[in-house]
Amino acid sequence: MRKVLIIGMGAGHPEHITIQAVNALQRVDVLFVTDKGPDKDDLARLRREICARYVPERSLRTLVIPDPERDRNPADYHTAVETWHEQRACIYEALFTEQLGEDECGAFLVWGDPSLYDSTIRIVEQIAARGAVEFEYEVIPGITSIQALTARHRIALNQIGAPVQITTGRRLAAQPEPLSTDTVVLLDGECAFKTLTDDRLEIYWGAYLGTPDEILLSGPLGEMSAKIQQARAAARDRKGWIMDTYLLRKPAAPRR
Amino acid sequence: MRKVLIIGMGAGHPEHITIQAVNALQRVDVLFVTDKGPDKDDLARLRREICARYVPERSLRTLVIPDPERDRNPADYHTAVETWHEQRACIYEALFTEQLGEDECGAFLVWGDPSLYDSTIRIVEQIAARGAVEFEYEVIPGITSIQALTARHRIALNQIGAPVQITTGRRLAAQPEPLSTDTVVLLDGECAFKTLTDDRLEIYWGAYLGTPDEILLSGPLGEMSAKIQQARAAARDRKGWIMDTYLLRKPAAPRR
Repeated sequence: MRKVLIIGMGAGHPEHITIQAVNALQRVDVLFVTDKGPDKDDLARLRREICARYVPERSLRTLVIPDPERDRNPADYHTAVETWHEQRACIYEALFTEQLGEDECGAFLVWGDPSLYDSTIRIVEQIAARGAVEFEYEVIPGITSIQALTARHRIALNQIGAPVQITTGRRLAAQPEPLSTDTVVLLDGECAFKTLTDDRLEIYWGAYLGTPDEILLSGPLGEMSAKIQQARAAARDRKGWIMDTYLLRKPAAPRR
Repeated sequence: MRKVLIIGMGAGHPEHITIQAVNALQRVDVLFVTDKGPDKDDLARLRREICARYVPERSLRTLVIPDPERDRNPADYHTAVETWHEQRACIYEALFTEQLGEDECGAFLVWGDPSLYDSTIRIVEQIAARGAVEFEYEVIPGITSIQALTARHRIALNQIGAPVQITTGRRLAAQPEPLSTDTVVLLDGECAFKTLTDDRLEIYWGAYLGTPDEILLSGPLGEMSAKIQQARAAARDRKGWIMDTYLLRKPAAPRR
């Protein structure tokens, strides 16, 4: 039976990978690579480094998957994403059928963890549901940028016994103030934090987490907002892309 | 300079540990162990297995830290936890001073990730802030039970572009219905999901994630609630303790 592994490779540090992921790589024959976006060179570098370090004896076939065109600012975001998933599912399905032998194992190496704002699981599930190609699949968890962020800032994600929200820049911008809980923001290309008026919030920001380019900034949002925007713009100009994440911490609630 | 490492060891599977954590263990002289609670035997077993597998050549001194009494149902939860942190900080501080040589490295191996509903970072930060003993400290991220849950159910944590809330059983029970977002619940000894009336919710539940005792159940909450309560009670009777986590997924929002 064909096997497909969806492997989290961690947030950017080659040592973020788990032993489980390294052991999984030992079984892989074909690496499916979706090179896209401005971060593709660094992603490819990390992937190569991980394979060279941890499975040097294994000669993996690498298959670059063509990426369907995607409208980045569609009128209907949800439908646009679903259409794009559908197109990807067709492409992957053909690759599984044509490029993966009946007893072979293919794998996707995903930034961070495959469960967090990544579409690979959904697409692979869709192919499995269609039933045109038979395969088993498995998900191997990885360190997310959220854990990389909190580890590097040496902070807990949550306040004592309190909840945390994980959301996107797009959603944060649309959310009414004040925030009801501490909030982690991912996929924010627009610095949505700059529109927040509650400057008692603390921000813990990190870019290129786990990599030699890592930048960490933290402090009261009122003080840090402009500094982070500047640092972010400068870093993006320098490298050509940026991946960043932040935690907005509400001031401690008054005791009950 | 004394060094203290706070290392996430993953959700229960010995292969959840990262290469970074394994490399960190190579530098450790003293392992601080807070054996407490009904899961202490399994926790100790996992810790021993990790050390035996990954740093077999290293003879670590293990120091069991006495645990201050803790009121589990205090009138003021927050203050009770802070008092307990304060007591722990005193105990840890004495151990760092008396048991850790000036050039030695001590470590805490924490279930999951140190940033998620764990007090070690807060306590160590408190000791550092007091300044009575000089040391550097570092946090090494680990796979959380949330990622172990989603990986084993082979699901994304979030719906497309949508937010996710992480909360506790205690908080969930106090929260008004309906839930405003998909919600992950940790630290729920009381099956707080059973009080929810929105039975269009889907539940993805997992116990002893990553271990040979792992149990996974999922489906519409209305159908699964009683089944999960039964499975949970039976497993807890059998093993003497249970650690479980679940995701409550809201039905897909109508398209805008």
